Amino acid sequence: MGSDGGDQPRLRQLNERVVLAAVRAAGEARVAEIVEQSGLGRTAVEEVLASLVERRWLVEESPAIRGRGRPARSYRFRAEAGYVVGLDIGAYSVRGVLTDLDGRMLASIRRSVTPEAPRARRLEAADEVIAACAADARLAASKVWAVGAGTTGLVDPAGTVVHANAIPDWAGTNLVSHFPHRLVVADNDSQLAALAEQRRGTDATEDMVFLHAGRRTGLALVLDGKLRRGAFGAAADMSALRGVAWEAALQHLHAVVPDDVPTVDKAERAFAAAREGDRAARTAVRKYAHAMAVAAATAIAIVDPKLLVLGGAFSQASDVLLEPLQTELEKLCPRVPEVRASTLGALCVALGAASLALDALDDRLLSPTRGPLPPLAVRSI
Amino acid sequence: MGSDGGDQPRLRQLNERVVLAAVRAAGEARVAEIVEQSGLGRTAVEEVLASLVERRWLVEESPAIRGRGRPARSYRFRAEAGYVVGLDIGAYSVRGVLTDLDGRMLASIRRSVTPEAPRARRLEAADEVIAACAADARLAASKVWAVGAGTTGLVDPAGTVVHANAIPDWAGTNLVSHFPHRLVVADNDSQLAALAEQRRGTDATEDMVFLHAGRRTGLALVLDGKLRRGAFGAAADMSALRGVAWEAALQHLHAVVPDDVPTVDKAERAFAAAREGDRAARTAVRKYAHAMAVAAATAIAIVDPKLLVLGGAFSQASDVLLEPLQTELEKLCPRVPEVRASTLGALCVALGAASLALDALDDRLLSPTRGPLPPLAVRSI
Repeated sequence: MGSDGGDQPRLRQLNERVVLAAVRAAGEARVAEIVEQSGLGRTAVEEVLASLVERRWLVEESPAIRGRGRPARSYRFRAEAGYVVGLDIGAYSVRGVLTDLDGRMLASIRRSVTPEAPRARRLEAADEVIAACAADARLAASKVWAVGAGTTGLVDPAGTVVHANAIPDWAGTNLVSHFPHRLVVADNDSQLAALAEQRRGTDATEDMVFLHAGRRTGLALVLDGKLRRGAFGAAADMSALRGVAWEAALQHLHAVVPDDVPTVDKAERAFAAAREGDRAARTAVRKYAHAMAVAAATAIAIVDPKLLVLGGAFSQASDVLLEPLQTELEKLCPRVPEVRASTLGALCVALGAASLALDALDDRLLSPTRGPLPPLAVRSI
Repeated sequence: MGSDGGDQPRLRQLNERVVLAAVRAAGEARVAEIVEQSGLGRTAVEEVLASLVERRWLVEESPAIRGRGRPARSYRFRAEAGYVVGLDIGAYSVRGVLTDLDGRMLASIRRSVTPEAPRARRLEAADEVIAACAADARLAASKVWAVGAGTTGLVDPAGTVVHANAIPDWAGTNLVSHFPHRLVVADNDSQLAALAEQRRGTDATEDMVFLHAGRRTGLALVLDGKLRRGAFGAAADMSALRGVAWEAALQHLHAVVPDDVPTVDKAERAFAAAREGDRAARTAVRKYAHAMAVAAATAIAIVDPKLLVLGGAFSQASDVLLEPLQTELEKLCPRVPEVRASTLGALCVALGAASLALDALDDRLLSPTRGPLPPLAVRSI
């Protein structure tokens, strides 16, 4: 109510965010387009643009000369100003992806670990993955502004792993405090995989049950366009439900593969055998699909989603897994949603962790209550 | 995008809705308050106000004279301009509530029916309830602008009962086409009960699993402030889940009551006996609570809500039911949300049906794409 001395800078900060958002949404935009998109006056837009170029958030592009007259200036968001790494910290591996501020993936790194590795070793592997991502993309380590970390088990809002059945020395680890980066966020792996599917998956993924199928298994919900985390961050945490036996499900696949195949490769070998028509392998896949369907059917009955997405590493075996999954769901559900395989495969958790980090950065950068945008010459996010 | 001849009326319609919404939200508002609330100029607001008064959407109130000077004019939404009836069509009864456009309840009527009654008789009872509601509130039948109907079973978006186990001659009934009113909407009873709880319940009901406990039993979800209907209108439809035995649960209560007590009264008698310390009745209530908890625990595991609300007619027995329900949930759930009893009791479904009708009216009245607001002298919604 009324106006005070603080209103002018606040308005300026709001305008900066509006202009920045308009340019980002367009990829590259001319002044007239930004004026139209932002609803601001031309003078205000030009002032803000000059200031954002000076502070290196935007870059003025030299347009190709088309037709007569002076070509209109256009502006591009400097998505290469900073980068984030999304981590997937599992029992057998730590994966990382590096993306720019627009989410374009520039590097993907995987390091093997063992379920029995002590906490410090797993965290060290995560540090190595971040460094290797930056090196792979030929970037200085300081260019990684933010880290998102996904891991198995329940992660509380402060970033502490509350429990993680798949990794003995893991509960109690605080992921946010471990990494030295200015902005670190963490969440459960299946929830992050669903987030990645919503952001990067094929169309119509605004309302889905996401079945995370791989060496780790889980469910997550995207409802009305929003990842459902739950009051305790435990939405779709099936460890609470009797009659859901993820571990036993995996054993069906492992049992049809020779003992000397490493555990980490067994499931893929079973899928490969099923693909070649091996009868025992096909039966094993059907039993596995049944166990997945029992869990998915519970979530389907509760939220009645438009879509069920088969995601995780095993989505790469959708040629042999999708049909049995659909068949088992039809036995269990009066109403089966559309069933579709993700195309993100084993990278889904790391990509979701990167999306989480980018969301947190956007929140910090684009909220007008956070003060003026810092200049990008220094690392000051 | 440029302007054409259609812009001016559209802007006017938008302004009408903005002003109407501002007055409704305030209850009664002075011009200065409406200007502040709406963000419109004073001249525009005064023009719109005059027009809305002329068409009888608003009434100008004669203010009490406080202090010196000419008292500021104030405006009130004519919530008494029209009314809605919310129906709850069950196996044993049809209930109705009549509310004004602000949702104030002015009448509540109940008619008994039997589960075996033919479809036509049940619909006739519904017609009688609407008429009796209007008569009870001393209103002409034409003052009832809209009807909302809730019923047991699954109701499709067109208002047809898809299935209803509790009433033999009910599946296939189209509720929307039966009633002669201009605006008729219908939905599942448990979902409407949850809607009523969200709108009229005590605080913090923006995120909950609603356990509808009465002669009919069901679950419904309000997530992030929004009733979750689901892709097929079947969210939280537990008929799809094995291991959930609503009917058997009720039998625990019925079994401890003498055979000559009418079925419709048996549960309340069992709760009364438990209240008086009858050991068999208390055991029966605990068994009933266990069955409810099994179903609720499934929904809790999937959506991880802040709150579980015990609603429906049996919420009136919360003094003997809430503690066993909480105890059983603690056995089944790693994370138990806050558990609370509804205060809406047996009226919850009818009140939710009224809310649904009011929402549909608001949508028709307040959407600027629907054309200018009609004058209220004639019934022309």
